[in-house]
Amino acid sequence: MQVGVSLTHIHSLMAEIVGDAYVFADESILRQHGSDETEDYCFPPDLVVKPGTTEEVSRIMRLCDQHGIVVTPRGAGTGLSGGALPTQGGIVLAMERFNKIINIDTLNLQAIVEPGVITEVFQDAVKALDLFYPPDPSSKGSCFIGGNLAENAGGPKAVKYGVTRDYVLNLEMVLPNGEVIWTGANVLKNSTGYNLTQLMIGSEGTLGIITKVVFKLRAYPQKDVTMLVPFRSSEEACRAIAAIFIAGISPSGMEFMERSAIEKTKKYLEDKLNYKVNIEVPDGIEAHLLIELDGNDDNQLMSEAEKVYEVLEGFETGEILLAQTSQQKEQLWKLRRNVSPAVNAYSLTKSEDVVVPRANLPDLVKGIKEIGSKFGFNSVCYGHLGDGNLHINIMKEQMSDEQWDNGVNEGIEQIFKLVVSLGGTLSGEHGIGIAKRPYMHLANAPAKIDLMRGIKQVFDPKGILNPGKIF
Amino acid sequence: MQVGVSLTHIHSLMAEIVGDAYVFADESILRQHGSDETEDYCFPPDLVVKPGTTEEVSRIMRLCDQHGIVVTPRGAGTGLSGGALPTQGGIVLAMERFNKIINIDTLNLQAIVEPGVITEVFQDAVKALDLFYPPDPSSKGSCFIGGNLAENAGGPKAVKYGVTRDYVLNLEMVLPNGEVIWTGANVLKNSTGYNLTQLMIGSEGTLGIITKVVFKLRAYPQKDVTMLVPFRSSEEACRAIAAIFIAGISPSGMEFMERSAIEKTKKYLEDKLNYKVNIEVPDGIEAHLLIELDGNDDNQLMSEAEKVYEVLEGFETGEILLAQTSQQKEQLWKLRRNVSPAVNAYSLTKSEDVVVPRANLPDLVKGIKEIGSKFGFNSVCYGHLGDGNLHINIMKEQMSDEQWDNGVNEGIEQIFKLVVSLGGTLSGEHGIGIAKRPYMHLANAPAKIDLMRGIKQVFDPKGILNPGKIF
Repeated sequence: MQVGVSLTHIHSLMAEIVGDAYVFADESILRQHGSDETEDYCFPPDLVVKPGTTEEVSRIMRLCDQHGIVVTPRGAGTGLSGGALPTQGGIVLAMERFNKIINIDTLNLQAIVEPGVITEVFQDAVKALDLFYPPDPSSKGSCFIGGNLAENAGGPKAVKYGVTRDYVLNLEMVLPNGEVIWTGANVLKNSTGYNLTQLMIGSEGTLGIITKVVFKLRAYPQKDVTMLVPFRSSEEACRAIAAIFIAGISPSGMEFMERSAIEKTKKYLEDKLNYKVNIEVPDGIEAHLLIELDGNDDNQLMSEAEKVYEVLEGFETGEILLAQTSQQKEQLWKLRRNVSPAVNAYSLTKSEDVVVPRANLPDLVKGIKEIGSKFGFNSVCYGHLGDGNLHINIMKEQMSDEQWDNGVNEGIEQIFKLVVSLGGTLSGEHGIGIAKRPYMHLANAPAKIDLMRGIKQVFDPKGILNPGKIF
Repeated sequence: MQVGVSLTHIHSLMAEIVGDAYVFADESILRQHGSDETEDYCFPPDLVVKPGTTEEVSRIMRLCDQHGIVVTPRGAGTGLSGGALPTQGGIVLAMERFNKIINIDTLNLQAIVEPGVITEVFQDAVKALDLFYPPDPSSKGSCFIGGNLAENAGGPKAVKYGVTRDYVLNLEMVLPNGEVIWTGANVLKNSTGYNLTQLMIGSEGTLGIITKVVFKLRAYPQKDVTMLVPFRSSEEACRAIAAIFIAGISPSGMEFMERSAIEKTKKYLEDKLNYKVNIEVPDGIEAHLLIELDGNDDNQLMSEAEKVYEVLEGFETGEILLAQTSQQKEQLWKLRRNVSPAVNAYSLTKSEDVVVPRANLPDLVKGIKEIGSKFGFNSVCYGHLGDGNLHINIMKEQMSDEQWDNGVNEGIEQIFKLVVSLGGTLSGEHGIGIAKRPYMHLANAPAKIDLMRGIKQVFDPKGILNPGKIF
């Protein structure tokens, strides 16, 4: 801790605020809160504090402001860009006790939740009332709403229903100096000054600590159709995506998996989770699209599915698997959701999350493989290609630490340069954190980054809140 | 002009940049650019400059930055909160020459347009390609895209399709010091640092000058159903709105008109535009809902319309008019779109644009009438009640100037207090500008306004861009 007061003293001051049971300094807990799902990074903080109320967060921040203590807010630690890692030590503010769904307002189709609620728990709670909260990152079973806001998480439904930012109406937040504000109002439209709500989303815990979230909700779509479409090449799959959208179809899922993504995930599910996937990938098939359509009317869905089939007739596909049962649908989605853990189970990886205009996907996928060959790494490509958002897991495998820590980064830089040249940018839904920070200048002019720094300075003049992230 | 250089000198410097033909100092042009559609305000600037390129805007701003000259960007002057009024003189930057649709990308469903394009011109251009740009303020036939962004305009389609902010992917903008940046990327998802694009939208020309806009587009819905539903009271109409949404119906239009709104507009259309509306409002009917459903499938639309009828059976409505022809639909929408000009044609008005959670609308409408009685003014209520956004035109009629300039404001303050107490806020889609600025503190804590001021300072340290607006 880089301050003029002793750690013991800070420990006792924190204990006065949250109670002794919620301040932690044991090595194992510090290490656990010093890492997330980003590579093998570990930056143990000096203390972990678990507040239970907005008032406690406010008192903690006032104290840290006074003593210049660095604070890093943390959700479930499922981040993929290191946004929640306390790289400069200090206090990790673990938000897990903020786990209440305060209100689901079926009259206004709104909900008020605390940031430590698990995304899927919230989804299930609103679904029980026939309501729909669409953002669904792969980690939805463990990630927190607060982290979803910090990184502006997306997921497969984003292609039709938008990302986290599209559902947030209002936030209660604690500023770095301890002041508590609401950023907006609980309304569907708002042109009342600068939109601080939207500014907070995707700001990776660098501007303030979110303590309550007001979401808007939708009616839950009653029906869906799911299909798995095999292609002879990734480029061909990408071209099919553009064609489907041009045909006026608006799928609720448009996911891409390379051959190796499916193979590794099948093996992972069988070996590690004892879960058998009944899908064979024939020779000559290099990529799959997992396509979902949803709605409330069987006839309309079927006519949309027929339209998809018509479009696909223009492409050389393998045999299309139309899921016939809810079990089969679940299996397809389980496969897709487990690509990332599967790839990570067999090798250390660096995970990229680039996004380009949809029609430029064929050039992107082709270019990534060429860059991999040149720089000597294998990658598994998959993701939300309906909205142009490709995940690339670059695998360490047998690579030396030296090559991994340095050589590969040159290749990653080439990938980002390619992405920017294709009109895209660095991250679609994982954020910048520390992992993509060295590349920010590739996609952002200095004047733009200066504006971001200026905004940071306005919210956090002492630079105590999650410093060293994004820029 | 509050600077150490003569107006003549500035005039010639501006003429060097944009050409003599595009710098104006004639009294009539200055007066014209000193007013918009907000009450009878008029603040003539010292000069009107009409740049034609980003480079020219950049050079103008560099010059104004150097000399400390105040600049107010202006679209079509259709604003209802005075956001584009040069209250401190200086230069009005009229963006009408930025009138090109640069590109409509049917492969990516995106378009690049300049801010001086008329909203309806843009809508028609994309519609010709079966594409849909939903934001449609009532002034769409004359307002500019740039102004729509500045105020985050909405319109009747917002209830299903969202407001202007939901369609903007990226912006080219000139900072007050003349630097040119792109705020984002041309992609559907973006978690790459603070979202400057969203910060710009609704910032009312106080942070930078938008010179290019990248929009996302949708497929154009092929079919629609339009109906006009009469109610015995406004509160009953508001309750019906909530019930329709709770039934899982997602209308593409849900507009409210008080009896007086329809009566005044019918008279206006007949007297001033020689356009006859074949709708009679029977005795005992106090309010109407104009409901539109859209989609691509006749059967599904009809089944949705039936659901609406079922919900409405629970309410005491008059006879529902289901539009049978496109002419009839056009007539209904023409009626709705002309409420504001109609009300303004018969009296000077103050126009409010409040927004509350939908279910609180009955209390709002009732409260507004009570406040009107207490403070002695009549008002016409109408607007986008599907998203809780009510327009209130308060009429001067026979009121004294003294009462209008002072007394009425007390009543408006009461309305805003009521709105905030109902969980709402000051503006849904018209912005704050100067007209609502005195009330900002009612809906925004001092710490929140301080953050806005801080952000303004980051973008515009010298305070030369549209000063005196919002806060």
